[in-house]
Formats: sequence, structure tokens, C-alpha cells
Amino acid sequence: MQIAMIGDKIVSADELEPVDLDRGIYFGDGVYEVVRSYDGRIFALEEHLQRFANSMAAIKIDGVDIDRIRDRVRKAFEAAGISNAKIYFHITRGSAPREHDWDANLEPNFFLTVTEAPNDDEEKSRGIAVSIHPDWRWKRCDIKSLNLLPNVLARHDATQKGCGEAIFIDEAGFITEGASSAFFTINGQTMQTASLTANILPSITRKFVIDAGKNIGLEITEKSLTPQQASDSDELFIAVTTKDIVPIVKFDGKIIGDGRPGKYTKLLIEEFRTFTV
Amino acid sequence: MQIAMIGDKIVSADELEPVDLDRGIYFGDGVYEVVRSYDGRIFALEEHLQRFANSMAAIKIDGVDIDRIRDRVRKAFEAAGISNAKIYFHITRGSAPREHDWDANLEPNFFLTVTEAPNDDEEKSRGIAVSIHPDWRWKRCDIKSLNLLPNVLARHDATQKGCGEAIFIDEAGFITEGASSAFFTINGQTMQTASLTANILPSITRKFVIDAGKNIGLEITEKSLTPQQASDSDELFIAVTTKDIVPIVKFDGKIIGDGRPGKYTKLLIEEFRTFTV
Repeated sequence: MQIAMIGDKIVSADELEPVDLDRGIYFGDGVYEVVRSYDGRIFALEEHLQRFANSMAAIKIDGVDIDRIRDRVRKAFEAAGISNAKIYFHITRGSAPREHDWDANLEPNFFLTVTEAPNDDEEKSRGIAVSIHPDWRWKRCDIKSLNLLPNVLARHDATQKGCGEAIFIDEAGFITEGASSAFFTINGQTMQTASLTANILPSITRKFVIDAGKNIGLEITEKSLTPQQASDSDELFIAVTTKDIVPIVKFDGKIIGDGRPGKYTKLLIEEFRTFTV
Repeated sequence: MQIAMIGDKIVSADELEPVDLDRGIYFGDGVYEVVRSYDGRIFALEEHLQRFANSMAAIKIDGVDIDRIRDRVRKAFEAAGISNAKIYFHITRGSAPREHDWDANLEPNFFLTVTEAPNDDEEKSRGIAVSIHPDWRWKRCDIKSLNLLPNVLARHDATQKGCGEAIFIDEAGFITEGASSAFFTINGQTMQTASLTANILPSITRKFVIDAGKNIGLEITEKSLTPQQASDSDELFIAVTTKDIVPIVKFDGKIIGDGRPGKYTKLLIEEFRTFTV
């Protein structure tokens, strides 16, 4: 008899629920998005839905209607009634006994949570320290997939070092991005971040930060930089959906500027806020 | 109110089951093993348990008693009563609301299935075709983790091309291994496979195949090779727990030898069988 075991309990394979057979857990065979609302309005939902569609296409999850995803996100957001909400959702390829290749008839599984967005007042006003970690991720980080173990391990390492984020360094010695954020430097009036390649997530927040930078008169350079260049910079910050812009005041143990959030970073935070009202 | 949505159904976040919050699905934050039995005896269980312990240690899943895992595997195998069984099991870090870093008090989740081992008679007697695919995997393939999306995509591509396995080619142009197998060539009396690095899973079957090769008088070379070297080889095969040795008769469209399983490959299959009785 084909059987399964959950913890110490033996069950017949027939008794397993679809959730027990989710390809998300066997393979991380799915993609996700995180959006947030500011004061009752979801920010940049269309951009996130477009990226979600791109991620699904990239891993060949077909037949998911983006209009239906939009409806679900809106319905859940309204049901939660949380003004400043973090909305997480994922689609996996579906549930089936474990085989690497998939059956074309699988029905994708959708899962979503709505929770309070993190309170980032202190991080924004005082800045955070960041650590560095080898970039162990796969070669298609442009796809926002559920294969996040390297991100988890890097973030754990950061926390152990008293840091709020881990910045990935690739094998060539260049910064790619944060474990769950985009990474920016400011030197003089130039803001720099890595260009979008297969090793960089096309961050939605990154796009708005670049717009904000232009609005306040900064030059934008999209080019990789080294940890040394980063720690020598005037200002550093990360960009992430749930907290938009968070100043970095310590990079791999080295104090940035005078150890307080930089003046352009603060201007960028203000400028970004104008996008969200 | 914090809420969740499963498909189209809205539920309170409090109503979610641990399985809905498994870090395995959010992050692929877990490790797994596959063992098989031959004629009622589990093969190389201790080696697999040791690798499982190594994988857990590498991703810092602590406090799991390997004796207890062994007991569960044996208990489930006996309950199933399948003589030639495939036993899959994984441990995830546990269930919690989604945050990259983890709480040290999380209770790991264990899941196992026992099914019939695949019938590989035809593959063994006729051999299989294999395709090639860029190795998109992360940089710690020595850890047998649940981050398997690149393996899934490569295997799907192989199936679309009428192939039974995808062989990964790294950025330097060298073969690493198969999407779920080790890869071997035979030239003259020399058997070659990639050496064990951070990009290669320390395959248990690989180890026994090397022993089998020595037993039948082959020289063993542990060194990476190129697709060109592979397609010029006398014989090719893959090694995988569920099917031990499977001859390759076509590599990326090129016929190997006379298009039938090679003589040493057949001797290796026979020699391997002596380990399993």
C-alpha cells in the first residue's frame, strides 16, 4: 500500500490533502509577490501584477488569469480592513505526487495573507546596519520564485551579526542586491544601483526610487559596485516594498558618513511619499 | 483583521493550519532524501541518513534526532509492505508566519511517502536519451535542499525533447551532473565523473558506482568534462538512487557508441546488483 507519514503519523497516500502534495513544498515550484498599502490604498498593484505574470510565464505556469488575481488581492485587502497592509501572495504549479516534470493539467494553488505592514519609523530615522554574504542564489533571480533558501540563510547570518539586511556579493566580487531588497549608493549627486540582469530582481520599488532620484535632481548610474566602493560612499540605502527606502548607516562593520541617514536619502524618502498618497 | 486566502476562500489568519504556514513552501526551507529498497531491504539507509544530517547541519536545522528519522523510515517501510519501494522524506524548518529569518524555537516538520520504485527494465535494457541545460542552480548543490525549481525546469525541457534526463552545463562549459542524477563517461577502461565540489551533490549511488567500477577493473577519474568530451565517449550513464545505473544512448542528439548500452555499463549494472542483495 502506498503510504505517507506526517510527523509520526502514518496515513494512506489516498488520505493526503492537496496541501500535503503542493509542488511548492517539494520543489519551490511557484512564484510570489509582496505589495503594500499606504493609508488604505494599495501601491503599484499593476506593476506587481505584471511582474507576477512575468514570473509565471518564466517558469511556465500557464492559464492563470491576472484579472482574477487582482480581484482576489482587492477582495482580501478590503476584507482585512488594514490601512497600512502588507499583502503577500503566491501561486504554485499545483498538487501532485512528487515527480520533477509536471502534468499539463495541474491546477495552480493560490495563497495570500494580509498583515500589518511593519512599523519602520525607527529604521527610517536611525538607519540600519547591513552585513555582506556570498550570493549563493540561482542564476535566474529575475524570476521571483519560492526558491529562497539562500536568502533565508543570508538573512539569518545578518540577524546574528545584529544587522537588518544581508547584501549579496557575487563570485566576481560585485554587489548584486540585498536578500530581500535593492541596494543603492549615493556619491556627490549620483545615485548608483546594479543594472537589471538575470541575477537581479526587477524591483518595483527600485523603479520608483530611480524616479524619485531624478525628481530631486540626482544623476542615476545603473552599474555594479564593489563592497569597497559601497563602504566608501557618502550615503547608502536599501529599497524594499514593505518599507520603501531604509537608510544604511553601517556597511559590513564600517560607519557610513557620520553614522546617520544621509541628506539625499532623507529627501528620497520624502519624495517617495508623494508617490504613495 | 489579519486574514489569509486559499484559492478564492478568505479565512482568518488564526484558522490556518501549520501545513499552510510551512517554511518549506514559502522558502524551500528544508532538506530531503530518497532511498529505495531492493527485494524487501532498504539500500544504503545509513549513508542517506548521514547525508540528511549533513544537509540539516548545513542549513542549521538543529535538534532533529537521526535515530528517530531512521525509526520512522523503517516503520513506514514495514507498514507499506512494498518490496521494491521508493521512500521519499523531507524535513522543513517548521511552520510560522512568513519572515526570512527564523525563530530558534520552531518545531521542524517531517513528511515521508513510500511508493513503488519505478520499473526501469526498459530504460536499463534500451538506454535513454539525455538533453543538456544550463546549470541555473544555486551555489550549494552539495546540500540536498527543497530549492529544486531549476531541476524541475530542466527536467521539463528534457521531457519536451523526448529525453529522460537533463544534464547540467555550468557557466564555464563543464558538465556538473544530471537534474536528479550523477553523470558518468567510460572511455577505454577509464570511468570519469565530476569531482565533489559545492556544485555537486555527494551522490550515494555515485559512491557505490565507483566501487563497482573498481571491482570490474576500471580506472576512476574524478574530473569535470565538457559536452563535447561526453558525446565523443565510448559509453555514458547516469546514476540515481531510484534506478541505480541507467545507460545513456543519446547525448544532446548525438548517438553514443552503437546506440545501445555499453559493455562496461552493463557489467556495472550487474556488479551494482551484488551490493543490493
